Amino acid sequence: MSRYVVSLGGNALGNDAEEQKNLLKFVAKPIVELIVAGHEVVIVHGNGPQVGMINLAFTESTFTPHMPFPECGAMSQGYIGFHLQNAIRNELERHAVTQTVGALVTQVEVDEHDPAFNDASKPIGAFYTKEQADRIIKEKGYVMKEDAGRGWRRVVPSPLPVDVIEKAMVKSLLDAGHVVICAGGGGVPVIRKEGRLEGVAAVIDKDYASAKIAELVEADYLIILTAVEHVYVNFNKPDQKALERVASSDFEPYIEAGEFAKGSMYPKIRACIGFLEKTDKTCVISSLAKASEAFRLETGTIITK
Amino acid sequence: MSRYVVSLGGNALGNDAEEQKNLLKFVAKPIVELIVAGHEVVIVHGNGPQVGMINLAFTESTFTPHMPFPECGAMSQGYIGFHLQNAIRNELERHAVTQTVGALVTQVEVDEHDPAFNDASKPIGAFYTKEQADRIIKEKGYVMKEDAGRGWRRVVPSPLPVDVIEKAMVKSLLDAGHVVICAGGGGVPVIRKEGRLEGVAAVIDKDYASAKIAELVEADYLIILTAVEHVYVNFNKPDQKALERVASSDFEPYIEAGEFAKGSMYPKIRACIGFLEKTDKTCVISSLAKASEAFRLETGTIITK
Repeated sequence: MSRYVVSLGGNALGNDAEEQKNLLKFVAKPIVELIVAGHEVVIVHGNGPQVGMINLAFTESTFTPHMPFPECGAMSQGYIGFHLQNAIRNELERHAVTQTVGALVTQVEVDEHDPAFNDASKPIGAFYTKEQADRIIKEKGYVMKEDAGRGWRRVVPSPLPVDVIEKAMVKSLLDAGHVVICAGGGGVPVIRKEGRLEGVAAVIDKDYASAKIAELVEADYLIILTAVEHVYVNFNKPDQKALERVASSDFEPYIEAGEFAKGSMYPKIRACIGFLEKTDKTCVISSLAKASEAFRLETGTIITK
Repeated sequence: MSRYVVSLGGNALGNDAEEQKNLLKFVAKPIVELIVAGHEVVIVHGNGPQVGMINLAFTESTFTPHMPFPECGAMSQGYIGFHLQNAIRNELERHAVTQTVGALVTQVEVDEHDPAFNDASKPIGAFYTKEQADRIIKEKGYVMKEDAGRGWRRVVPSPLPVDVIEKAMVKSLLDAGHVVICAGGGGVPVIRKEGRLEGVAAVIDKDYASAKIAELVEADYLIILTAVEHVYVNFNKPDQKALERVASSDFEPYIEAGEFAKGSMYPKIRACIGFLEKTDKTCVISSLAKASEAFRLETGTIITK
C-alpha cells in the first residue's frame, strides 16, 4: 500500500457543469483502480477555467454584489469538489467499495513578501478594451495587462505555497482510510497579517500546491496528469525526445536551455524537483489518458532523486 | 467533553462577501469558547441568500454557461465554508489553540419518492413577470409560482434528508479532534438513480440536515441558532410566552394549534423532535446573539425527550 498525491489539470474538466460531470466519469476510473488496489489517494485539481467562469458571472451580473477573487476560488473548490467526489463515489459503488471520498475546502498560506507580489503575471477573468482597463485600474486598483493581442485582463500574482492550513485534517482523513480532494485550484491563498489569515487575490500553481501536499502527507508518489504522455525535449520538433526515467538533477541543463514552457511544463517539473529535494520518493508526469499506466509506473516521465 | 452540532442560519451571514466576513468574526467567538472548553463541534450552516446570489449571477450573466442548482449549492458550501473556517481558525489562534477547522463538501441523499417532489414549495433565485415566468416554464420546465405579490419565482422541492454520503469523513475528523463544517445549506441534495448518486434541484432544510448529522455522529447536543432567544407561544401577541424547558411531546398541542410558522420555527422544532425520537440527548433553540449562554444551557428553549 502506497500513498499517492494526484494532480489534475483544470483544463481537463470542460467548459460547463454538464461537460465537467461527464469528463469526470472517465477521470474517476483510473483513480478508483488505484483505490481498489488498496492505495491511499489525495487529489489536487486545477481550477483556471472554472474560477474564471465564476469570476466572470459575478463581474457581469448587475444585481449581485462584488465577489473577491479568493471567494471565487473557494466557490470553485465546492463546484469541482462536488463533481469529483460524486464521480469517484459512483465509480467506487460500481466496484462495491464503501470507502468515502470528499473535498475539503482548503486555505494555502503564501508569504506576503513572496517576490511574486511585485510581479503580477497570472491573467484571470474577462478581456477588456484599453479604455475599460484604464477605468478598472483607476476604480479598483487592479493590475491589468495586455494579453497576446486578445485584449486587456486583470493579472494577479502567483506566489509559492508555504503551508496548508488544513493539513492535519487531510492527514487524519487519509489515516482513517478516506479519499481526500483538497487544495483545489492550488488552494485559497491566504497571507498572515497581524496574526490573522486573510484571503488574497492570487493564484497558487496547483502543481506546486500538490508537491507541498505530497511533502506534508509524506506521499510515496506525486503523479502530475496533464495533456501529454511524457516530458519532452525538443518538444514539437522533428527530433522531439520523450524523457522516460530521469533523475531530478538531469533536468537542470534542459531548464537552462529553456526547454520547458513557463506556463505549462516548467512548473510541473519544478514541483517534482522541489518534492524530491525533501524526500527520496518518486514523481511521474504523464497524461490523464494514460493515468492507469502512469500509476503503475508503466509510462510517463518517471523522476527520482 | 460533549459533542455539539450547531446549526447557523444563512440569513445571519449578511448580503455580500465583506459583510459575511465581518459577521462571522462574531459568530466565531462563542463557537471557539465551546472548542476551548474541550468540546467537539460540528457546524451546519444555511445558504438561502448565498445560493440565491450565486444562482442569480449565473442566470444574469450572458457569457457564462447554465449553472444547475445543485452546483450553485456546492459553490455556496465553498464560499461560506471558507469564511467560516477562516474566522474560526483566526479566533482559535487568538486563544493559541492549534486545532484545525475545515469545511467538507457534503452530499445529502434524499428519496426521489419523497412527497415533496410532487409539491415544489421553496422559492429560489430572481423574481420574474408573469410573461417571463411562462417562457421559463416552457423553455426549462421549471415550476414557477407567484411569491406574495412580489413577482414569479422558481420553486423547488424541499425533501427530507435520508443519509449523509460523507458521514464517515465527518466522524473521522471529529474523532481526530478537528472542528468540522459540513452539510452547508442542508447539503447538496442527491438522489440514487440506477445505482448512481445524482444532484437534484431541491433545497434540504438545514435544520433537518443538522438533526440528521447529530443523529449520525451521535451528538450530545443539537443547538439551533436563529434570530430569537426562545421558542414562543402566542408569538408577537400581548400574551407571548417563552418556552424554557420542555419535553419533546409538549410541542404537539402547540403544533396542532398552528403556533409555529412553517418556513421559520416549525422546521426547527420538527428537527429537534426528530432527533429526540432517536436519542435521549438535548436540543436547544436560541438566538445567535445568546449562543454562549445557549451552549451552557443558560438560555434558549431546552428540549429533552
